[in-house]
Amino acid sequence: MSNNVSALGQKAKKAAATLANLDSTAKNEALLKIAAGLLANQDRILAVNQNEVAKAKADGLRDSLTERLMLNPDRIASMVEGLHAIVRLEDPVGSVEKMWRRPNGLEIGRVRVPLGVVAIIYEARPNVTVDATALCLKTGNAVILRGGSEALQTNQVLVEVIRESLRGTAVPEDGVQLLASPEREAAVALMRMHEYVDVLVPRGGAGLIKTVINNALVPVIETGVGICHTYVDASANLEQALKIVVNAKTQRPSVCNALETLLVHQAIAAGFLPRCGEELRRAGTEIRGCPQTLTYLPWVTAATEEDWATEYLDLILAVKVVPDFAAAIDHIARYGSGHSECIITSDYATARQFLQIVDAAAVYVNASTRFTDGYEFGLGAELGISTQKLHARGPMGLDALTTTKYIIHGDGQIRK
Amino acid sequence: MSNNVSALGQKAKKAAATLANLDSTAKNEALLKIAAGLLANQDRILAVNQNEVAKAKADGLRDSLTERLMLNPDRIASMVEGLHAIVRLEDPVGSVEKMWRRPNGLEIGRVRVPLGVVAIIYEARPNVTVDATALCLKTGNAVILRGGSEALQTNQVLVEVIRESLRGTAVPEDGVQLLASPEREAAVALMRMHEYVDVLVPRGGAGLIKTVINNALVPVIETGVGICHTYVDASANLEQALKIVVNAKTQRPSVCNALETLLVHQAIAAGFLPRCGEELRRAGTEIRGCPQTLTYLPWVTAATEEDWATEYLDLILAVKVVPDFAAAIDHIARYGSGHSECIITSDYATARQFLQIVDAAAVYVNASTRFTDGYEFGLGAELGISTQKLHARGPMGLDALTTTKYIIHGDGQIRK
Repeated sequence: MSNNVSALGQKAKKAAATLANLDSTAKNEALLKIAAGLLANQDRILAVNQNEVAKAKADGLRDSLTERLMLNPDRIASMVEGLHAIVRLEDPVGSVEKMWRRPNGLEIGRVRVPLGVVAIIYEARPNVTVDATALCLKTGNAVILRGGSEALQTNQVLVEVIRESLRGTAVPEDGVQLLASPEREAAVALMRMHEYVDVLVPRGGAGLIKTVINNALVPVIETGVGICHTYVDASANLEQALKIVVNAKTQRPSVCNALETLLVHQAIAAGFLPRCGEELRRAGTEIRGCPQTLTYLPWVTAATEEDWATEYLDLILAVKVVPDFAAAIDHIARYGSGHSECIITSDYATARQFLQIVDAAAVYVNASTRFTDGYEFGLGAELGISTQKLHARGPMGLDALTTTKYIIHGDGQIRK
Repeated sequence: MSNNVSALGQKAKKAAATLANLDSTAKNEALLKIAAGLLANQDRILAVNQNEVAKAKADGLRDSLTERLMLNPDRIASMVEGLHAIVRLEDPVGSVEKMWRRPNGLEIGRVRVPLGVVAIIYEARPNVTVDATALCLKTGNAVILRGGSEALQTNQVLVEVIRESLRGTAVPEDGVQLLASPEREAAVALMRMHEYVDVLVPRGGAGLIKTVINNALVPVIETGVGICHTYVDASANLEQALKIVVNAKTQRPSVCNALETLLVHQAIAAGFLPRCGEELRRAGTEIRGCPQTLTYLPWVTAATEEDWATEYLDLILAVKVVPDFAAAIDHIARYGSGHSECIITSDYATARQFLQIVDAAAVYVNASTRFTDGYEFGLGAELGISTQKLHARGPMGLDALTTTKYIIHGDGQIRK
C-alpha cells in the first residue's frame, strides 16, 4: 500500500520540477486543453457519474450528499468556466516582490515560486477535482488528489480526462495524480509522505481535519471549520442588524462562513430579539437560546453548552444575550474557530476595538460573514478558507499555493 | 507531566491575548527593562552559569558544547546589545499591507498580527533564550522556551531575570515561560499541544528536527539543516571561485550556511582543483573526493555515498567533478537540504538558469553562501533559517513571527 502511494509521490515530485519552470503561457495553454477535454468528453463523464449516483442512492447515501455528487451539463459548464477564470488570473510565480542592494554590493531579491507537490484530501464534490487541479497547475505545482470514496469513479474519469488532455502540452501528465485506493491506510500514507509532499490541504468537516492533524507528518493547512459569530452591539442600527443576521444565517446555511451563534447586547435585546427571532422563524430557522433569550423568545429551545461549540451548517442558530462588549469578546475567544466574526455597531471606538481584538481570519464591521470567500474578496478562485495562522489565513488564492526563495547576485563577495 | 505543560500553555495563551494588543512603545519599553535587568543581575547570572559549566566539565561534556554554554560579561553585553537592536527594528504588527474597495462598497484590508504562542525547542546556547524572547515579545507573541538540559540552570536564571524585569511593564510575565522539566515527555507534550501553541520552531541538528516532525501535532517551522553546495561552472572566474569556496567552507565551518559539497565542472577541474585543494588543505580542511577528484588530489580520502548526504559542520569538504551543468543541478536536487546553493559562473544564461531551477531558500551567483543570515540580508535579527516552504523560507525575521487577518468595513452589505 504505502509503496504505491510512495511511487505516486515520487512521480508527482518529478513532475513538479518540470512544472516549476514553465512559463504562464504554457500553463494556461494546458488549462485550456483541460477545459476543451472536459467538454469533448462530457458524455463519457456523465455516464460514469450517473452510474455512481445510482449506486449511491441504492446504498442509501443521504440526499444532500448525492446531490453534491451529481454532475450534469450545467455543472460541467461551470467547471469549464472555472478553468477559464483561472486562466485569466495573474500567475504569481516569478514575480520578484522586492529586491535590494546591500552595502557590499550583493543584490538580494525575493521571488515567488511554486510550493512543489500539493496534496488535497476532500469530501464528495467532484468539482474540487477540477478546481484544485487548475489552481495547482496554474501556480506550477503538482497535485495529488484524494477525494471521497462515494465519488471515486467520477473523480477517476475526471482525472483520466485531465491527464489525456495534458498529453502534447508542456505540463507533464504526472503533475495530476489521483490516489484511488479507498483504504484509510492509503490516505494516512499520503499524510506521512514528508519526502514528497510539500503541503497537505484537507477540505472537509471537523472530523477530517482532526484526523489529518493527528496523522500528518507533512505540513498542513487547516481549512474550513467555521463557528462564526455576529455580535449586535448596544449601538447597532437594528434595521441593518436584522438584514445582516438573517442573511448570514439563512442565505446558504451549509457553508463555513454562515452564522452559527448570534450574540446580542442586553440593552437592545428587548427591541431586537423578538423581531429578529420572528424573521428567522419565518425563514425556517430553529433557535437555541440562553435563558435570557428564552424570556424574549419563549418558543425557542434552551441552548446547552454544546450548542456554543457546534458548527451546525444548517438552519439552526444559537443565540446568547451578553451583558457587554467584553462578554461578547470573551465568548468569541472561547468558542470561535478563527474563521469569520462580525460586530454590528454604529460606535467608532467599539468598531475599532473589535477589529483589533478579535483573533480570526476575517473580522467584520456591519456586513454579513457570508463574504469570506475568494471571489467576494476580489482574490479570484480559492482552494479553501484557511483557519490556521501559518502561511495562509482566510481565502487561499493563488498566492497561498506559492512560497518564495531568495536570489542573490554577487561578483565575488565573501564574508569577513 | 502533560498537565504541567498544559497549564503553562494556558498561561501563555492568556498572556498572548494581552500582548497582541500592545503598542510598539509598550513592547519596546519592556525589552529595555529586560536589557537593564540582565545588566543589573549580571553577577547572579554568571554565578549560576559558572556552576553549570563546572558541572558540565565534570560530567565530561564536549569542549565545544561547554564553550557554547559559557557566559561572561562580554556575552551578556552582546545579549543586551541584541535587545537594543531589536528595539530599533520596526514592529510589523498593525501594518495594513493592502486595503481595497469592492464594487459593493466593502473595504477589505490585510493587517499584520502576532501568531499568538510561539514555542521554541533549542540546543545548548543560552543567548537564544534572550534573543528568541525579544523577537517574540517585539512581535506581540508569547513564547514557551525549551532549552537543552545542559543549560537548564542558566536558562532558568535568565528567564527569572526576564520575568522579574517585566513586572511593572505592560507585558505580562506569563508571556515568557520556560519549560523546565528535563523529561523527554515534557517536550513531546509541548509538541502536541495543538490547543495552545500556534507554531513550534525547533532550532538544532537534524536529530532534533526529525524528532519534532515525527511527534508534533502543532504547526512546525523546520530550521537549520544546511547541506550547501557550490558549483564551479566551466565559465567561472577561477580566482573568484577560489576565494568564495575557501570562504564558504572555512570562515565558520560549524554553521548551517557553510559549504559542505563542492561541485566542479570537468572542463576546469584540472586548472582549479589542485590550487583549490592546496588552499583548503592549508586552512586545515579534510577533503573527501569522487574518483575524478582523486586524480587531481591524490592525497584526499575517497568519498562514500554517505558523504554527499552529510552536513559536516566541520572542516571537512566533499568534492565531486561533474560532466556538465545538468549533472550539478541533479546532484543538488538529490542531496541538497534546501538551504543555500551557489554557482560560480561568468555566463549570463547559465547564471539565470541556476537561479530559476534550483529549489532552495537562498540561491547565489558568485558569492559565499555564508551570507544567508538575517543581518547579512539586511532583515535584522532572526529566529533561525527556515528550510521549509510553508510560511517562512530563509532567515526568519520579525515578519515570520506574524500572520495576517482580513478586516472588513461595511455599512450593511449582505450577500445576494
